Amino acid sequence: MSALIMDGTSVATSALAETAERVRDFTARVGRPPVLATVLVGDDPASHTYVRMKRSRCARVGIGSRSVELPATTTTAELVGLLAELSGDPAVDGILLQHPVPGHVDERAAFEAIAPHKDVDGVTTRSFAAMAFGLPGFASCTPGGILRLLDAYDVPLPGRRAVVVGRSPILGKPVALLLLARDATVTCCHSKTADLAEVVREADVVVAAVGRPELVRGEWVKPGAVVVDAGYNPGNVGDVEHATARERAGLITPVPGGVGPMTIALLLEQTARAAEANAGLA
Amino acid sequence: MSALIMDGTSVATSALAETAERVRDFTARVGRPPVLATVLVGDDPASHTYVRMKRSRCARVGIGSRSVELPATTTTAELVGLLAELSGDPAVDGILLQHPVPGHVDERAAFEAIAPHKDVDGVTTRSFAAMAFGLPGFASCTPGGILRLLDAYDVPLPGRRAVVVGRSPILGKPVALLLLARDATVTCCHSKTADLAEVVREADVVVAAVGRPELVRGEWVKPGAVVVDAGYNPGNVGDVEHATARERAGLITPVPGGVGPMTIALLLEQTARAAEANAGLA
Repeated sequence: MSALIMDGTSVATSALAETAERVRDFTARVGRPPVLATVLVGDDPASHTYVRMKRSRCARVGIGSRSVELPATTTTAELVGLLAELSGDPAVDGILLQHPVPGHVDERAAFEAIAPHKDVDGVTTRSFAAMAFGLPGFASCTPGGILRLLDAYDVPLPGRRAVVVGRSPILGKPVALLLLARDATVTCCHSKTADLAEVVREADVVVAAVGRPELVRGEWVKPGAVVVDAGYNPGNVGDVEHATARERAGLITPVPGGVGPMTIALLLEQTARAAEANAGLA
Repeated sequence: MSALIMDGTSVATSALAETAERVRDFTARVGRPPVLATVLVGDDPASHTYVRMKRSRCARVGIGSRSVELPATTTTAELVGLLAELSGDPAVDGILLQHPVPGHVDERAAFEAIAPHKDVDGVTTRSFAAMAFGLPGFASCTPGGILRLLDAYDVPLPGRRAVVVGRSPILGKPVALLLLARDATVTCCHSKTADLAEVVREADVVVAAVGRPELVRGEWVKPGAVVVDAGYNPGNVGDVEHATARERAGLITPVPGGVGPMTIALLLEQTARAAEANAGLA
């Protein structure tokens, strides 16, 4: 038996079409498109690619973007100052700080300089708490995108056992909290987990989010389980040993074409939502 | 075999003695004691008792307290206004809003009106994120007190399986995040968990924090496990079926005399710490 593939590209395409319609409506009513400011610090080629891709998706749905590129020598104070300025700029609706930032920059201080109502990438502590407590606010885009994908495939969550492998502030922890808010029984695993195989075997839903190629072995997957692979390692390899996992899972995301497209779709939808709120339409 | 009892009263007494010394030192240097403002809304007798107890403990370690009692008819706006005023008052070092507040009050809005540097009860979203991300800040007192108690008994956490029963914003979720920050593999259970017995059986450390008398049955406890009972139900009954759990556990907290005293000890220690920071000593 082979798993059904969760087609993130297709689900994201529908979501993007809805966002495009929303953006058309906004632009007609407000007289300008929603605007996402992207901030990039340093010369990391992958980060440049990601930002370019996000800006090009913005353009496709009619969202304007403003690009700020800063040298790798930028200080924390300079970056914080810029983000505070964008937070106060009425012509900017959403702010995306591409991470990772260079090692000498205090990334948390930078994130916190983003006004919560423009935090469309869901990186501030305020957004984190909103996800945890079910308050109004923006979700981190990858975790929020994963939940959308699970919903698109009608994956039941209440009372099911979900296992999240990874505990980063913008991926593992928020996805665990979102699954908990949806009434799953959630286990968080990480590099210190004593017997990862045993924990994954219990899972009705597994989310792999560590950035280690094929860390989650196919033979650990409970037959019929839902496997979400949020890893994206060089060579289009995920955090799950896909070929073998696919033989046991009920549903599985591909890499690429699974979680990735959902992340961008959520970013754009949240930008449209921020613009509506900033314009007093929501 | 019967479990060793984790004596929260005794551990808290040592902690309070340290805080008393800190407070003496602070008072000598600053010329006034640290001050905790307690805010109580409405007529709930249990809440009145808790606040009285906290104020009396403050007095014993030399912390001054300011008591604000508001009628049950207080609006959210009035409460928010008062908490904002106390947040800006240089003569107040820490603020405790006794919960629950009356049903018509937006408790989250009230909590958020407490300045993070005076949030010695650890109830703001900022404090929550600090616990989650290991940032400087104050812990929710019961979760923080539980961690202190585990440390006092040298309970190993890295790689161990911890199960938290309950997911409230000031108890279940923060204790789960603190255990995760200490490298435990953490599972969060709640009312929708399908087979609570099975999940508890996996736990090396169980924290019961739901407020349902003896919900966690003794026979579910893995032999030798550490059992922390944060429940406190009428008649001195915890959330754990103590008599039978005690026969299986390696370590167990009593009710009362386990988690309760640690909660107050942490509140006072955090008030002393807030005062030191507010006076520029820390």
